[in-house]
Amino acid sequence: MTIAETIKNLAIGAKRAARQVASLSTTSKNRVLLKMAEALVANKAMIQAENEKDLAAGRAKGLSAAMLDRLALTDKTIDSMVTGLTEVAALPDPVGEISEMVQRPSGITVGRMRVPLGVIAMIYESRPNVTVDAAALCLKAGNGVVLRGGSEAIHSNLALAKVLQEVLSAEGINPAAVQVIPVTDREAITAMLQLEEQIDLVIPRGGEGLIRFVSENSRIPVLKHYKGVCHVFVDESGDFDMAVHIIMNGKTQRPGVCNALETLLVHQNAAPAFLPLICEKLAAAKVEIRGCERTRAIVPTVTPALPTDWGMEFLDLILAVKVVDNLDAAMDHIVQYGSLHTEAIVTNNYAHAQRFLREVDASAVMVNASTRFNDGGQFGLGAEIGISTTKLHAYGPMGLKELTTRKFIVYGSGQVRS
Amino acid sequence: MTIAETIKNLAIGAKRAARQVASLSTTSKNRVLLKMAEALVANKAMIQAENEKDLAAGRAKGLSAAMLDRLALTDKTIDSMVTGLTEVAALPDPVGEISEMVQRPSGITVGRMRVPLGVIAMIYESRPNVTVDAAALCLKAGNGVVLRGGSEAIHSNLALAKVLQEVLSAEGINPAAVQVIPVTDREAITAMLQLEEQIDLVIPRGGEGLIRFVSENSRIPVLKHYKGVCHVFVDESGDFDMAVHIIMNGKTQRPGVCNALETLLVHQNAAPAFLPLICEKLAAAKVEIRGCERTRAIVPTVTPALPTDWGMEFLDLILAVKVVDNLDAAMDHIVQYGSLHTEAIVTNNYAHAQRFLREVDASAVMVNASTRFNDGGQFGLGAEIGISTTKLHAYGPMGLKELTTRKFIVYGSGQVRS
Repeated sequence: MTIAETIKNLAIGAKRAARQVASLSTTSKNRVLLKMAEALVANKAMIQAENEKDLAAGRAKGLSAAMLDRLALTDKTIDSMVTGLTEVAALPDPVGEISEMVQRPSGITVGRMRVPLGVIAMIYESRPNVTVDAAALCLKAGNGVVLRGGSEAIHSNLALAKVLQEVLSAEGINPAAVQVIPVTDREAITAMLQLEEQIDLVIPRGGEGLIRFVSENSRIPVLKHYKGVCHVFVDESGDFDMAVHIIMNGKTQRPGVCNALETLLVHQNAAPAFLPLICEKLAAAKVEIRGCERTRAIVPTVTPALPTDWGMEFLDLILAVKVVDNLDAAMDHIVQYGSLHTEAIVTNNYAHAQRFLREVDASAVMVNASTRFNDGGQFGLGAEIGISTTKLHAYGPMGLKELTTRKFIVYGSGQVRS
Repeated sequence: MTIAETIKNLAIGAKRAARQVASLSTTSKNRVLLKMAEALVANKAMIQAENEKDLAAGRAKGLSAAMLDRLALTDKTIDSMVTGLTEVAALPDPVGEISEMVQRPSGITVGRMRVPLGVIAMIYESRPNVTVDAAALCLKAGNGVVLRGGSEAIHSNLALAKVLQEVLSAEGINPAAVQVIPVTDREAITAMLQLEEQIDLVIPRGGEGLIRFVSENSRIPVLKHYKGVCHVFVDESGDFDMAVHIIMNGKTQRPGVCNALETLLVHQNAAPAFLPLICEKLAAAKVEIRGCERTRAIVPTVTPALPTDWGMEFLDLILAVKVVDNLDAAMDHIVQYGSLHTEAIVTNNYAHAQRFLREVDASAVMVNASTRFNDGGQFGLGAEIGISTTKLHAYGPMGLKELTTRKFIVYGSGQVRS
């Protein structure tokens, strides 16, 4: 069998199994998730032995310490997957919810029923815990799932899938509902992305290169974000203490994540007093500041910003800083350099707050709060499967509801169209 | 300039204009729509003169009478575009609606604000009235729109666009918000489908060939349906009179549309009494019946169905008829041959009605009603821009709301992530 045939058969199996999963009761789905949590604990030795094969290969290949760290299934990582399964079991089940029922002049009653999407494909890199987290969310939302992790985690991913599939079988559920693609060639991804008859949604998570590859090659709808270039705009009326808190939190609390702060915009009337204050705090936290000419005129020790620093996702202790004329100039900058991810204003001006909220196009727009809040857990969605800056279907963190859709249902009593 | 460059410049213009349209008040948008209605009337002679060029070219090319009929901008067609604009102006504006506001444990208040998608591209065939109908819906939802009609309607479409753009200019709105692509080569479509930076959504409407071409070549999300293969299942307990009404309406009221009935499934216990009844009515209405062997055993005059008749979108007075063992067999048939468009059951069995509603995967699932009801107007959405069987974002008729998305908004008072 060719790789394309292997992948297609696997997806056909997932589609068949998905029909069964879609009809499971909430109680059944929750029981399966809790049994999966137990099974991870019971099979910890096997999982860690398989993970050790990946780690050994990674060491031999010279992976960085950070990469090896992300690859490792330590006791703590396994505990956190167990907690994740338990939390997903505790979330409300979105499937079957009926809303917007109305009677129409024709006499039919029409509403919308929330239903699973079908089969969801996840394409991700290194962290094998995504295998369990994603499978749990997809199953709870009534979907089948096809998982394609990185080649460096293949033994770990297959071991985790085996544990999950054994639980499905023991519960009388077709184990094909959770599939890990055993082929590590990139050709397997290309083949998968053609299967629009079998797969309803693709979610890629990883570096921008992987995501662009998926986006350019997929016939299946893709939800994704390329990067997070988040801005904070300190308005003329912004509270300086509040601004300092929000900027320091955005930049330093976890600089390597997508909702971290990358560019600071400061109103020209706030700049003379505010910039020396924030630059001192940033310097104390070892943040490199790359400023525009107007910034450097106020704080001369700042490194000059290169044109490429605007719109750059540093993912590091580096911050671009620009002085802008006013709210409109700040919003123009965000239109030009933003990534539709997260944008925040610090202001005490009511009209400016409302304009920023309405006019800025991003998956989350904030007044007087840290960009770091753009997160499914923080927003109350429960666990999230990623953040989308695709505007279709889901814009922002994707929780269980975003893994479902709504169909129309009609209750009639013999009505016909006249 | 190459075709690709022309199309890109045009899309860049639409994106810039879309930012202005997104910020317009409801009052402004409605005024523009009503002025457009007036302008169509005022420019009727010019529009019809341009339309006559397309009709003459069509006649010379030997287009069928039906094609020429769809191409013609008669007084009646123009009246109906005017009515359409007035109706869209009267619809509630979805933009700005805020929902699901909650306070989170962190102290931030989070909710979702409905916002325009940005720029929407419509790709369609022959009927030039789509130019006006689609532009109206996209504008009301706060979007820019790029329109690509068929080459046979190019003079009509450019004339209509000119009228709409003049109104935009007169109202101080960037006329690039409504663009008709002046290039009729298919290369223009291919070029447009690459512009994911400028265009947020593509909606193709037309034959299956066009839609597959768009779907296979687009990097931009596509909402579409390939075809409508709609089934009615007459259950053992179904009321025969009601079933006859629903089947006759589905098959004969307007056989050429996507929500017309294509296949009838009959429970084996209902078949002996029901099939002679319905076949007589269908024959009287000149419907050709193509039946399975079990159907022919009961009504021997029926034409034998070929394997290709199952799942066929006849769009004509032809109906495929199959006797099935039970509800599960009916649902299995629909899984295999359905098109996720519209499926109906005629039953008086409560449990069967509920199972059918829940388990059948289609954009609209109906109990005891005609498949012909799957329509934006009938469902209460107002005008529709098409029906989607893509499950992401919109499943079923797409009205104004489906031309928007929701972003997260956060009201804080200095909160940071701990």
